[in-house]
Amino acid sequence: MSKKKGRKVKYLVGVDVGGSKIMAGVFTHDLKQLHSVKIDTWVHRGPDAVLQRIIDCAKDAITGAGLKLSDVAAIGVGTPGIVNPKAGTVVVAPNLRWENFNLRSRLVKAFRRPVVIGNDCTTAMEGIYEVELRKKPRNALGMFMGTGLGGALVLGGEVYSGMGSIAGEVGHMVVERTGPRCGCGSQGCFEVFSSRTGIANRMRAKLQNGDASMLKELLAQDQKEPGTLRSEHLHDAIKQGDQLAERMVRDAAEYTGLAVASLINLLSPEVVVLGGGLIGALHEQIMPIVHDQVRSHALLRFLKEPKVFATKLGDRAGIVGAAVLARRAATGH
Amino acid sequence: MSKKKGRKVKYLVGVDVGGSKIMAGVFTHDLKQLHSVKIDTWVHRGPDAVLQRIIDCAKDAITGAGLKLSDVAAIGVGTPGIVNPKAGTVVVAPNLRWENFNLRSRLVKAFRRPVVIGNDCTTAMEGIYEVELRKKPRNALGMFMGTGLGGALVLGGEVYSGMGSIAGEVGHMVVERTGPRCGCGSQGCFEVFSSRTGIANRMRAKLQNGDASMLKELLAQDQKEPGTLRSEHLHDAIKQGDQLAERMVRDAAEYTGLAVASLINLLSPEVVVLGGGLIGALHEQIMPIVHDQVRSHALLRFLKEPKVFATKLGDRAGIVGAAVLARRAATGH
Repeated sequence: MSKKKGRKVKYLVGVDVGGSKIMAGVFTHDLKQLHSVKIDTWVHRGPDAVLQRIIDCAKDAITGAGLKLSDVAAIGVGTPGIVNPKAGTVVVAPNLRWENFNLRSRLVKAFRRPVVIGNDCTTAMEGIYEVELRKKPRNALGMFMGTGLGGALVLGGEVYSGMGSIAGEVGHMVVERTGPRCGCGSQGCFEVFSSRTGIANRMRAKLQNGDASMLKELLAQDQKEPGTLRSEHLHDAIKQGDQLAERMVRDAAEYTGLAVASLINLLSPEVVVLGGGLIGALHEQIMPIVHDQVRSHALLRFLKEPKVFATKLGDRAGIVGAAVLARRAATGH
Repeated sequence: MSKKKGRKVKYLVGVDVGGSKIMAGVFTHDLKQLHSVKIDTWVHRGPDAVLQRIIDCAKDAITGAGLKLSDVAAIGVGTPGIVNPKAGTVVVAPNLRWENFNLRSRLVKAFRRPVVIGNDCTTAMEGIYEVELRKKPRNALGMFMGTGLGGALVLGGEVYSGMGSIAGEVGHMVVERTGPRCGCGSQGCFEVFSSRTGIANRMRAKLQNGDASMLKELLAQDQKEPGTLRSEHLHDAIKQGDQLAERMVRDAAEYTGLAVASLINLLSPEVVVLGGGLIGALHEQIMPIVHDQVRSHALLRFLKEPKVFATKLGDRAGIVGAAVLARRAATGH
């Protein structure tokens, strides 16, 4: 480990806040992971409880790495929703029940260390770009399928943020004009089909219409306590021959493939990388369908075929990316 | 008029090649238009005939402006299809029946002047950006509805071209998974619904199913000689109460609005500008529907609302943009 300008070596903390789980990792300056902790988010306990869970999770990770808070150079946090990184606020995160939530100042108060926050997908993409995309493509697309469905764009070698800080809202591209209502107020959004929440909602609707599934009880429980149904449950049900789960995951994969193909036609990226909990647990089911859809719908006769793959970082993409943000905050680059 | 470094003032020629019409304009260095000419493309006469039409059109414009070829500093040409500006070739332009067509070298041979070529939509967007978007937005989206349906993206203040030179293929975003087949080999592409060719095809299908329209004969003729049905015909038919034309144009506008909303959610641009023949003739019918769809489907609660409007350049956007390309070729900026 290198010492810079005689200063003591400091460590980075990356936190990834999800609708179901919070994960925190402690990293060296060159992004070697020392320790990580994963706990439930417990969204149903309310906004302040979620904040406390984030603090607890990060502290556990630091302690677990055998370090003290004073050893930490900076803390990065990726959170779902619309984030204003400059102001340090979460404008709105329906999955966490946050609105105009002053996340950074509250974390600074708790940790007395520099804190930087970002959108969860953008942050995961920073991690993937830094450690997995070694060729540093100029243009790349990230798509993250979990509780919700988000995206991130790298354009011209930089994470793209549009006019505000919410570009890359892949989940709210409309893929079926007459599709089901989405929580955003629109209808037929991609997220309605291809997020875990969307799959759960569609399965519940099918159960009401007389379909059967071994996940029936879990789905009922999930409605009261969102996040109860995990991607792993869908995976196990499919392995055990559950046809409804299989059909809904196939639908999710088909829409994902369509969206990927559309975005290839639109942006001609070099790389499309998929991540998030659904991909982590179900990439064997999902990726072949995505590849099929890309072959049928992307203009591959005319454009260079991009690499389309699932991130090998799995559910670590978020904490690695958050550590990248923390390193940037600590070192200025 | 300013003289630069004692050299004689030279003029710019901009040509816009469409599936139905070719237009050429002669411009001063500061993009003042001196003269323009518009003729039929006559695609059915074959690839070489189209080339000759381009040459004739540009020569007519130069003569009409009272100039000689030697007065022309450079010629810019926007053409549909996939263009390789560096090589000066049109990789493929189905609407013109061109494949690996060496457009630039053949035009240089005809004119003995510097020639630069570009994709028609990208070129139109260059024109709009230069003369109409005075605030020089960092991120903007152009969508052009004519014989086909194309797009162009300005990202970070520059026209975006992805990995190759075919980014911005808005027309081949999939908007209906189970929609009609598209000429590109995919199905349910946006172009199938919202281009003039798409509207004509859908109207013919409806006529076969027993619908009625005063455009029946024109539509039959258009099938033999694509381009016979003009946007103006659709406009006039709607004004005279033709319900089928009205319904198909409304569908086209709804899908356009959906695509615009999706792209706003994805890219959060400052400006979305619509152009092309359909918009030129039918903006009064189309734009209110587009605005409605944007209001229902874009995440406007969370992002800054972009300006969505029809270009005031009308069908001149292409030749102005081509003149911008020509000026860049002549002056190096």
